[in-house]
Amino acid sequence: MNGELEYIREDETIDDLQLKGLNLIQKKDGFKFGIDAVLLSDFANVKSKHKVMDLCTGTGIVPFLLYGKYGPQSVYGLEIQEEMVDMAKRSAKLNLLGEQIKFFQGDLKNIGKLKQFEKFDVVTVNPPYKLNSAGIINTNDKLAIARHEILCNLEDVIIASRILLKDNGRLFMIHRPERLADIFTLMRKYKIEPKRVKMIHPKIGKAPNIVLVEGQRDGGAYLKWDAPLYVYDDNGKYTKEIDSIYWRI
Amino acid sequence: MNGELEYIREDETIDDLQLKGLNLIQKKDGFKFGIDAVLLSDFANVKSKHKVMDLCTGTGIVPFLLYGKYGPQSVYGLEIQEEMVDMAKRSAKLNLLGEQIKFFQGDLKNIGKLKQFEKFDVVTVNPPYKLNSAGIINTNDKLAIARHEILCNLEDVIIASRILLKDNGRLFMIHRPERLADIFTLMRKYKIEPKRVKMIHPKIGKAPNIVLVEGQRDGGAYLKWDAPLYVYDDNGKYTKEIDSIYWRI
Repeated sequence: MNGELEYIREDETIDDLQLKGLNLIQKKDGFKFGIDAVLLSDFANVKSKHKVMDLCTGTGIVPFLLYGKYGPQSVYGLEIQEEMVDMAKRSAKLNLLGEQIKFFQGDLKNIGKLKQFEKFDVVTVNPPYKLNSAGIINTNDKLAIARHEILCNLEDVIIASRILLKDNGRLFMIHRPERLADIFTLMRKYKIEPKRVKMIHPKIGKAPNIVLVEGQRDGGAYLKWDAPLYVYDDNGKYTKEIDSIYWRI
Repeated sequence: MNGELEYIREDETIDDLQLKGLNLIQKKDGFKFGIDAVLLSDFANVKSKHKVMDLCTGTGIVPFLLYGKYGPQSVYGLEIQEEMVDMAKRSAKLNLLGEQIKFFQGDLKNIGKLKQFEKFDVVTVNPPYKLNSAGIINTNDKLAIARHEILCNLEDVIIASRILLKDNGRLFMIHRPERLADIFTLMRKYKIEPKRVKMIHPKIGKAPNIVLVEGQRDGGAYLKWDAPLYVYDDNGKYTKEIDSIYWRI
């Protein structure tokens, strides 16, 4: 472990992803990756020949999970907050990953910058999911930026995906069910056809609180619904299905 | 029962709805109402002061269920197939209902005709849900007309609802989950905002196969997801929730 200390700062910690020896640098008291990243990387259909871009990548959890699970040709991550990009880059160094995983600081609303990238087979994104309520939120708050539509909104994310995807490339997004009308409407507006939906319910019989959506750039219209997933059982423990997703990481 | 025979024909039967003594004339061998009508009338939020229009009403099952459950001021039904309208009208006579329930023969694509109606607090609809696949379907087939988008499609239904609803009036629709992107996109296009969704699953853990959607004419954007409903238990019997909906009829 001593050798790893050169990569981290005092307020940071190195978390073992328990996946092919991969580690992730996170803040001790800040935003830590949660079940969203795990569900998104399980839902994404990534192949070894694919080039992948993860938007709103934060400290890079989704690229590391996708790399460890699917071994794609490359995974890039784009993030606007410099401090998080710096952590993600240090995690890549720590994991001795050079070419397969790369992180970029940038604003996904910067269309010119997006067009400089090659095109991708897959775009993944766990965007800020709360509508921006002006006046309530401290815009310097890193957690708020990750959760609220302060620096980018759903439409920005879908426009960016349209630009970054190859023809027929796939977008995999995790979001909240109450935004599904917005998601479908905006995907159709920018010709990323909704192809598959999976609902996550906290328990059997409860309304869904997370939605996974797969879209295809210029895809034909047919929407498939996956079987739902229940997170907790009646005893408040993870269900077998959730355990097996964590185990498959 | 002898008195009732004057209302029906040889190929018809009178079915007791087990709801306030209401009966429905149906074909012995034709389309009979199913769980869709029962789920839709349970999902619809109808009050005693409301005026309701049921589109694609068929033999009138939804108006009779809504009348029996909620006692609204009036329920109208619009249906394009004359034979079904005739059956619905005879059911109304049979039930001694004159002013509260009325049926009209007409094409919901006939905008001029729709505009002659008063405006409604609630529109309900169980539309043909299968995309029309030209060449496969016998367009004289009454069952096919009820199930496939031959004489009207989803967009026609939503345009008609827009015309018929009062400001802030509510649309309640039952459809198939694979059409939900179409439903949301078209509702937004015609400014009927999706407000509530309820998914019906054949069993726990299975993908949903029926969706109930509530929209509000010129409503504000916030989409609520109801708890899901499971139709069958592990023994292939109706769940308690479904039993109680039938019982509440």
